[in-house]
Amino acid sequence: MTRTLIKETIQKVGEDVKVEGKISVRRDHSSVVFFDLKDRTGTLQVVLTSEVALNCKEEDLVAIEGTVKQRPAKMENNEMETGKVELEAKNIKIISKAQDLPFALKDTPELSLPVLLDFRPLTLRSDNVKAILKVEEAVIDEFRNTLKSLDFFEFQAPAIVPTATEGGAEIFKIDYYNTSAFLGQSPQFYKQIMVGAFERAFTVSKAYRAEPSVTTRHLSEYVSLDAEMGYIESWTHIMDVCEIIIKNIFKRVEKDCLKELALLKASLPEIKNSIPRIKMREAQKIILERTGRDNTKEPDLTPEDEKEICQWAKENHQSELVFITHYPTKKRPFYTMPDEEDQEYTLSFDILCRGLEITTGGQRINNYEQLKENIIKWGNKPEQFDFYLQAFKYGMPPEGGFAFGAERIVKQILGLENLREASCFPRDMSRIDGRIANNE
Amino acid sequence: MTRTLIKETIQKVGEDVKVEGKISVRRDHSSVVFFDLKDRTGTLQVVLTSEVALNCKEEDLVAIEGTVKQRPAKMENNEMETGKVELEAKNIKIISKAQDLPFALKDTPELSLPVLLDFRPLTLRSDNVKAILKVEEAVIDEFRNTLKSLDFFEFQAPAIVPTATEGGAEIFKIDYYNTSAFLGQSPQFYKQIMVGAFERAFTVSKAYRAEPSVTTRHLSEYVSLDAEMGYIESWTHIMDVCEIIIKNIFKRVEKDCLKELALLKASLPEIKNSIPRIKMREAQKIILERTGRDNTKEPDLTPEDEKEICQWAKENHQSELVFITHYPTKKRPFYTMPDEEDQEYTLSFDILCRGLEITTGGQRINNYEQLKENIIKWGNKPEQFDFYLQAFKYGMPPEGGFAFGAERIVKQILGLENLREASCFPRDMSRIDGRIANNE
Repeated sequence: MTRTLIKETIQKVGEDVKVEGKISVRRDHSSVVFFDLKDRTGTLQVVLTSEVALNCKEEDLVAIEGTVKQRPAKMENNEMETGKVELEAKNIKIISKAQDLPFALKDTPELSLPVLLDFRPLTLRSDNVKAILKVEEAVIDEFRNTLKSLDFFEFQAPAIVPTATEGGAEIFKIDYYNTSAFLGQSPQFYKQIMVGAFERAFTVSKAYRAEPSVTTRHLSEYVSLDAEMGYIESWTHIMDVCEIIIKNIFKRVEKDCLKELALLKASLPEIKNSIPRIKMREAQKIILERTGRDNTKEPDLTPEDEKEICQWAKENHQSELVFITHYPTKKRPFYTMPDEEDQEYTLSFDILCRGLEITTGGQRINNYEQLKENIIKWGNKPEQFDFYLQAFKYGMPPEGGFAFGAERIVKQILGLENLREASCFPRDMSRIDGRIANNE
Repeated sequence: MTRTLIKETIQKVGEDVKVEGKISVRRDHSSVVFFDLKDRTGTLQVVLTSEVALNCKEEDLVAIEGTVKQRPAKMENNEMETGKVELEAKNIKIISKAQDLPFALKDTPELSLPVLLDFRPLTLRSDNVKAILKVEEAVIDEFRNTLKSLDFFEFQAPAIVPTATEGGAEIFKIDYYNTSAFLGQSPQFYKQIMVGAFERAFTVSKAYRAEPSVTTRHLSEYVSLDAEMGYIESWTHIMDVCEIIIKNIFKRVEKDCLKELALLKASLPEIKNSIPRIKMREAQKIILERTGRDNTKEPDLTPEDEKEICQWAKENHQSELVFITHYPTKKRPFYTMPDEEDQEYTLSFDILCRGLEITTGGQRINNYEQLKENIIKWGNKPEQFDFYLQAFKYGMPPEGGFAFGAERIVKQILGLENLREASCFPRDMSRIDGRIANNE
């Protein structure tokens, strides 16, 4: 008999079928046994005699043949998609026996983070973790869909790079044949080069940061959603595109991940009309007024500032997101376009969402000579950037772009405590799959 | 005036518009000048007086204001989408001036590979290279679409791995904080782990091979299209899914990349009905009969064998692709399922396309004890695989999967001489963007 998927059983009342999946719950009532059987399409109640049920237990994978029955009206379960039916089992075959679990999968939400990750191959099977990853899948997919609809070309950015391009310390070195190479901290240069060919380009790629500390909001390897666009009329055009993307992502998650949001008790960040846009210096003044904290001379917002300004945006603009613009020239990379009206600041922005940066972007310098000068001003040698500079030498339109951190979006949508929860297989200073022995 | 995209000019006869793009051709006829102006949507003929045209030259980026005119019937160009119109220029503004080019972009197809790659930011702008990358985009996108339609979950596989898992030498080592890590040779273990959670999973990710030599068919970093599926009824089920994918990819490229195929003078590989499936030992016998070459004792097909058996499949099955199955157990990784009927061979396969392997796959061992034994038999310690083994310890259905090399599919569809041409930014032993200095 060929396999019937669980979601199809609703259409097969009275028929004999074979279902396959894992036992997620076993309930014994004297001689009657109930299983909740799960496959990728849903959950089904199976009724068995204790003789048929054998000693099968939770997480065992089984094939069960039986008859699909309509449940009596009062026994219907409206919370299950198959809640109007159940399977009366005739026989059972064990596909794969699970060893005793170190914890019940339903307790996954209560596990400490180290346990959650030490047992990742197991905890990935819990409804909770699967729900988080479903949201991540939708976020990345909608980023892609939106950019395609806006005529962006998707390319595959390389991760191996020849030099530490955007700042020195936090970069991983690779033994590359007889020399050294590095893991790219972002596909920045490559997406800019692609603008020269395709005007608009995006890439879903890995970015690497050798963060020297363990925080709740950094990963050593993360998914960077990068885009870059040429022929912009104004740098605000770049923010407009970001706003379209993030609104589409929220709509998509709301539409496709209803069950997941409910399970995780999460609600999407509010954006009543549009995302407010304020200069960093203005934000610092607002924070000073609201809290008495005077950070108005600081070159960046502190984590507390980021939370406070999000609170301000929520109260005053019914938006849980806010654009912070015009970061100081000194704090941004050499390719960032300075503001003509005040060269100490740049045409750059971050998006903060519920207190955390999820996006960074801005206009870039597209003039070859100006870019070369800036490389020197930042203490580097233009020769090291020969490859990148070609893109500007042979003509580059006014352009800019942005990067969204995929895991950070997921974290902020779902209110996760730690960014690691939003990654299938997170890597950090002390962990690659298991814990790193000599760092313990 | 806001920008009008070139493809929109057809609808704007008689109107004044501003177009922006690069001059791809300049033709001077005494006092009249013609430009072919290109933007991301197409090419437009622009007519200018020599006073207006200034000294603008090929690859300069310009904004041109003028009036869209219907061309006289005899001047229409049916090979251009905008061939019925032209722009009568009133004024021109230089957006970005290109320096003198080292070669004309239209000569890109004649460039030697080192020049093609040394000037990648420039050669990416040629019609030829853009066409190749458009085909790559379509191939990857269709892989994704097909697997989604088959209910596979998309996840993000990590590239940083803790150990050299699938064989020792050809792996890149990373300085990872106070220890070492490696760049994954494939997302194999992770996609298998995901089967435990989602039954069917796929990932578009980078794979890394420290190939110790430069060949026309290897890259140090390539795009691996990986999928894995549980609850298979038979291992042939895995090949069936591969066949659906590759047929969909060909259909998609044929539909969406007509212009690109024409430009590159390429035609898609033929599959008249289905892709023939033959055992490696049978293939060797056929080769012996056809050529007199006796490789029937060899553990694998040689590159010449791969070409010959493809020729056989074309002649006998009207298929330019062929499944080669049942590779020897000793030559496959420890997780490969042996054939019950003959344990010296495995339930594994490759797909060859026009003489080159583009896919590899097979059924995996899903029994925990058997897998552990095989790890030992292959000379490894099960403790090193603790994380991976968890997936089997807690129940794993019969499963298998496959990986397509994205650049290889593109190379074989387009008949490219070198795999590097199918990658935006290829990395190999002697090159990361530019050539590696100390390897010259």
